[in-house]
Amino acid sequence: MTNFIFKNPTKIIFGKNTISSISEEIPRDKRVLVTFGGGSVKENGVYKQVQEALKGFTFFEFWGIEANPDISTLRKAIALGKEEKCDFVLAVGGGSVIDGSKLIAAGILYDGDAWEIVMKRDWTANKALPLASVLTLPATGSEMNAGAVISDRANKEKFAFYSQYPVFSVLDPETTFTLPSHQVACGLADTFIHVIEQYLTTTDQSPLMDRWAEGILQTVIEIAPQIRENQHNYDAMANFMLSATMALNGFVSMGVSQDWATHMIGHELTALHGLTHGHTLTIVLPGTMWVMREEKGDKILQYGKRVWNIEGSDRVETIRKIIDRTEEFFRSLGLKTKLSENGAGVETIDEIERRFEERKVKFGENRTVDSAVARKILEKVF
Amino acid sequence: MTNFIFKNPTKIIFGKNTISSISEEIPRDKRVLVTFGGGSVKENGVYKQVQEALKGFTFFEFWGIEANPDISTLRKAIALGKEEKCDFVLAVGGGSVIDGSKLIAAGILYDGDAWEIVMKRDWTANKALPLASVLTLPATGSEMNAGAVISDRANKEKFAFYSQYPVFSVLDPETTFTLPSHQVACGLADTFIHVIEQYLTTTDQSPLMDRWAEGILQTVIEIAPQIRENQHNYDAMANFMLSATMALNGFVSMGVSQDWATHMIGHELTALHGLTHGHTLTIVLPGTMWVMREEKGDKILQYGKRVWNIEGSDRVETIRKIIDRTEEFFRSLGLKTKLSENGAGVETIDEIERRFEERKVKFGENRTVDSAVARKILEKVF
Repeated sequence: MTNFIFKNPTKIIFGKNTISSISEEIPRDKRVLVTFGGGSVKENGVYKQVQEALKGFTFFEFWGIEANPDISTLRKAIALGKEEKCDFVLAVGGGSVIDGSKLIAAGILYDGDAWEIVMKRDWTANKALPLASVLTLPATGSEMNAGAVISDRANKEKFAFYSQYPVFSVLDPETTFTLPSHQVACGLADTFIHVIEQYLTTTDQSPLMDRWAEGILQTVIEIAPQIRENQHNYDAMANFMLSATMALNGFVSMGVSQDWATHMIGHELTALHGLTHGHTLTIVLPGTMWVMREEKGDKILQYGKRVWNIEGSDRVETIRKIIDRTEEFFRSLGLKTKLSENGAGVETIDEIERRFEERKVKFGENRTVDSAVARKILEKVF
Repeated sequence: MTNFIFKNPTKIIFGKNTISSISEEIPRDKRVLVTFGGGSVKENGVYKQVQEALKGFTFFEFWGIEANPDISTLRKAIALGKEEKCDFVLAVGGGSVIDGSKLIAAGILYDGDAWEIVMKRDWTANKALPLASVLTLPATGSEMNAGAVISDRANKEKFAFYSQYPVFSVLDPETTFTLPSHQVACGLADTFIHVIEQYLTTTDQSPLMDRWAEGILQTVIEIAPQIRENQHNYDAMANFMLSATMALNGFVSMGVSQDWATHMIGHELTALHGLTHGHTLTIVLPGTMWVMREEKGDKILQYGKRVWNIEGSDRVETIRKIIDRTEEFFRSLGLKTKLSENGAGVETIDEIERRFEERKVKFGENRTVDSAVARKILEKVF
């Protein structure tokens, strides 16, 4: 194990009928900027519950934060927040609304253009308004971490930055019952691959972190078919919501190395083709596993044995089976796992290679995933 | 899953040579009361590292917090803290020093006698000084939770109360290399049974929490023989330290029921016979499992299958095997698991039954462990 520092101060309020608790969690004297995505919260009752809870508060609504929140939209929210002198941000929605609101919370206190905050990458030591969330789509873990990913559609770019943790997040599994099944599938995939990024490196770093990572993977595999069958299964949706939050809040990454190459390549697929984040990961991961099979071989075998019960005497053949089984799982969620099935041509591979070459990036736990390796990964999943 | 609220704000600073970081974590203007147990930290270098880190701070030392911290000792520390106008408490030691320091941190700001704080049971909404810790003995989890257990030897009593979380805790696994092997054994047992108390109830509450609980149990079982063989094995001790902290910080109990009957009976054995806390649990648990086998049967079978790989067609016989295997594990740590091996006579059972009867307590996840059931449990492990 390597040295680490862990601190996660977010308060999680979890369960049925918990949205009303925001009235006790937000100080009465705050001027609250409430941020939303599209109108789905008006249909599923969440908006009404939030309105009810905020009776007596001074609050301002900002609507229209899109999937993969765009800097141009967020600039408008920041302008509203500055104009109304807001001093608290409440994000109501999925990971995109919460991610975008992290930039809004920082941008309201920043004099320059908010994209500069993104490009500074780490805003954790700088000022931001307190932020809280009402989560409606389990996937990104943004409700209990300090990360956010912001897009600039004008320049087809997408970057992560770090800011403050939400003060509190309300997780009511019933808000997820009416989500589109594609979003649920992407959320399950996102949860799964967040864990993989923190787990599928080398063996013998921490048996406890390995067990906890495997525990989330096993849980997602167990609940996915129940959710596909009935999205109103409260316990299944509750465990999905809990798993998604636990998958990216630092609980499974203490003292161990991390990868994230699959995410970095996936972000480019979203930037270039608008694919949902979780979906891009299911396309890239089987390629990453295959191309990196020498570095990651022992861990892939441990993963296969413990999570899928796959063992074999031929090392390469067993690794191939484990990767195939993983891809099958993604396809069982209803996701298409090949680039060519998703409207991408060979020019996508060329462009991503060019960008990585230009930025001189090296991803992965050993910093070995450069532009050439990224090309190999994408060719494998074409 | 049931509704829950989770918040754990403690900052964990984990790894080699991390004690020096306390100089950056404690504000310079604080008057620090530094609390210690016996003199072992003078022998293993911890005291020197703490002294070095506190150069330039105004601090006062209080020595002599014993195992199962006694109210009479803590009263003296509180008097010193009041006299010197301390406004920060730094506990350097194991769970007893940290538990005791939680009462000290509350007591310095309290006008009455500190035992009143214990008897109020829940001090979380009341004032206490900020507390931090340098942990030297993995076991109780006190370094990352709000609980504490205080003894009153004069009246042979021992009670838990709840206060604030430590602001930060420094966990350097190297501080554990020279611990007496009996203390390490008790720490491993304590870690194991903390998890059992939050896990061994009923099945199908949360597959994720089950996996995480089993993950700690599997890790303790995996590292225990490595630790018994070589207490200077850094990775094994680091994973022990991490497991002990994760076993009782709320991470494995989200949305699930909890038991704690074994602890409540164990506390009485410490109060009456001075046995080390972790050791008392290894005596009581096999009895709890056997006597409660109808309520807990399905979960015992899940535990046996997943953690010990024990399965069988005869339900009762399989449960018996699983309990025997658990007890064998405790004995492999060098602990004697029968009451009669540990200086307790039948009068101990009579006295605990009498106390539980007098207090009209009902413990366990279904509140079914009363004085009569406690007698059955103790008779089983006599």
